[in-house]
Amino acid sequence: MTTSPHQTRRNDDPTDAPWPGDRLREFATRFDAQFERLLTPTSPAPERILQAVRYAALGPGKRLRPFLVVRSCELVEGNVADAWPVAVAVECVHAFSLVHDDLPAMDDDELRRGRRTCHVQFDEATAVLVGDVLIILAFEILARNVEDHALATRLIRELAEGAGWSGMIGGQMDDISGQAEPPELDRTVAIHERKTARLFRTACRMGVLIGRGADETIDSIGRYGQSLGRAFQIADDLLDLTASTEMLGKRVGKDAAAHKQTFPRAVGMDESIAAARKLAGEALVALEPFGKAADDLRSLARYVIDRDY
Amino acid sequence: MTTSPHQTRRNDDPTDAPWPGDRLREFATRFDAQFERLLTPTSPAPERILQAVRYAALGPGKRLRPFLVVRSCELVEGNVADAWPVAVAVECVHAFSLVHDDLPAMDDDELRRGRRTCHVQFDEATAVLVGDVLIILAFEILARNVEDHALATRLIRELAEGAGWSGMIGGQMDDISGQAEPPELDRTVAIHERKTARLFRTACRMGVLIGRGADETIDSIGRYGQSLGRAFQIADDLLDLTASTEMLGKRVGKDAAAHKQTFPRAVGMDESIAAARKLAGEALVALEPFGKAADDLRSLARYVIDRDY
Repeated sequence: MTTSPHQTRRNDDPTDAPWPGDRLREFATRFDAQFERLLTPTSPAPERILQAVRYAALGPGKRLRPFLVVRSCELVEGNVADAWPVAVAVECVHAFSLVHDDLPAMDDDELRRGRRTCHVQFDEATAVLVGDVLIILAFEILARNVEDHALATRLIRELAEGAGWSGMIGGQMDDISGQAEPPELDRTVAIHERKTARLFRTACRMGVLIGRGADETIDSIGRYGQSLGRAFQIADDLLDLTASTEMLGKRVGKDAAAHKQTFPRAVGMDESIAAARKLAGEALVALEPFGKAADDLRSLARYVIDRDY
Repeated sequence: MTTSPHQTRRNDDPTDAPWPGDRLREFATRFDAQFERLLTPTSPAPERILQAVRYAALGPGKRLRPFLVVRSCELVEGNVADAWPVAVAVECVHAFSLVHDDLPAMDDDELRRGRRTCHVQFDEATAVLVGDVLIILAFEILARNVEDHALATRLIRELAEGAGWSGMIGGQMDDISGQAEPPELDRTVAIHERKTARLFRTACRMGVLIGRGADETIDSIGRYGQSLGRAFQIADDLLDLTASTEMLGKRVGKDAAAHKQTFPRAVGMDESIAAARKLAGEALVALEPFGKAADDLRSLARYVIDRDY
């Protein structure tokens, strides 16, 4: 490992580790204003659940999936104002998955984005309910804010498929079951595809959908999201071995301790780095039909290739 | 307490305790065929999560909320074929709430409907994921199966409101927080309204909605559901004190042990019975505009009035 400008900057802001540049940081600020606005109950709710949901969702975060939604919408010259609720819905699903995955019965993490996890800050029962509320909010926000009802139901189906038992949650199930199995590449790839890449893909597809892009664009941007997501998850596996807790804002070294199926355990460090770079390259290929509007999406993929592990 | 024919019959089928009659049992059989059909992933999913979701959802159950959906639809001469997916969506939300409420961090129950609870049969992590999947399925099933997209999004909003932080989950949050507080009637009523009555109300409203009933019918049948739900929750509080584990298929005496806010703790047994009967009477009043088609809904309300505690 060498020291790089990226690492210096990441150390300055531990919650912002894999976030390449001010342009993306600026996006997160704009997104958070929309997130806060839409994360409000339509009728009164108990104070404790309001506070806990807001703690879990509105805390520091890279907002990578919302970024994919909005940039994919812009790519097909869609209206960004329409994309915000879609981006919020996808981030609600991501936030729920963090809260539930951090629970003692799951990955048992006490630190997330440099702060105490939801069940430590509140309690386990509250954290279970917070995740439940966030799933419901994701679908409610789509149903309330997408004016074209046919498009709303299409987006709801897309999000349900990406998040549910065939998608992200299925990946988390396999991730937990996999702890009892010897490390194996095929198994690891299948887990990464569901656990991480599926929601990246879904975010991209939903962005093109709300921007009313063509079916072939939905598919190609979806492939970009899928490859990017897999590259990011390998990077995450690598950082769990090489980074510090201060740098990532979450506990490191935990995958090995939990006997998780990871790329480095299955194929070693060097081949993992090569695999991440190859996938990021595939993500770039999927963007070839697109011009300058895809530059931000390209820079995300390049970040995976260029960074130090 | 006196012995009654109800109790004799209930003892024969411990999973079927507050279920008044063969007509309703027959409904559950018809519903379960639809439930099983719709509880199938659209793409492959890990075997363990499939099994666990089906264990939790398709096990024995009274199917009271689906019954409310379908009978409310019939009341406005709606098409029952349209109502099945709506009934399944509501039951998915109910099933999720049972799985998560039974977790060790919540009510810590090992027995439900005469069988081991999901986290005992599988494990805690799996049970958390099962509840998550069931929430997502509820919305996915509505988005996929309600052909009129405007109606689908209306139903999704209705279900989200009934289930979310202002509704059922908010009630569970208050139920847990209330364990630290002295028993108090207002607090108990507020918990019952959210935790139980809200989803009864939602089921009734969604049934009228899918049957394309008038707005005033949505409201009056919603009031029936609300009163019935409150009556049922008081009955549930009472049975936790007076019934046996064999009769109910779940552990009894647990509310007092957990210092829960219950009607008997707040106002005593006799006043609780009187309150349940008064609410069931209010449910009957809400049905007055309706003829014979409301008979099954009436018999549910009368069951709360007539039963022994």
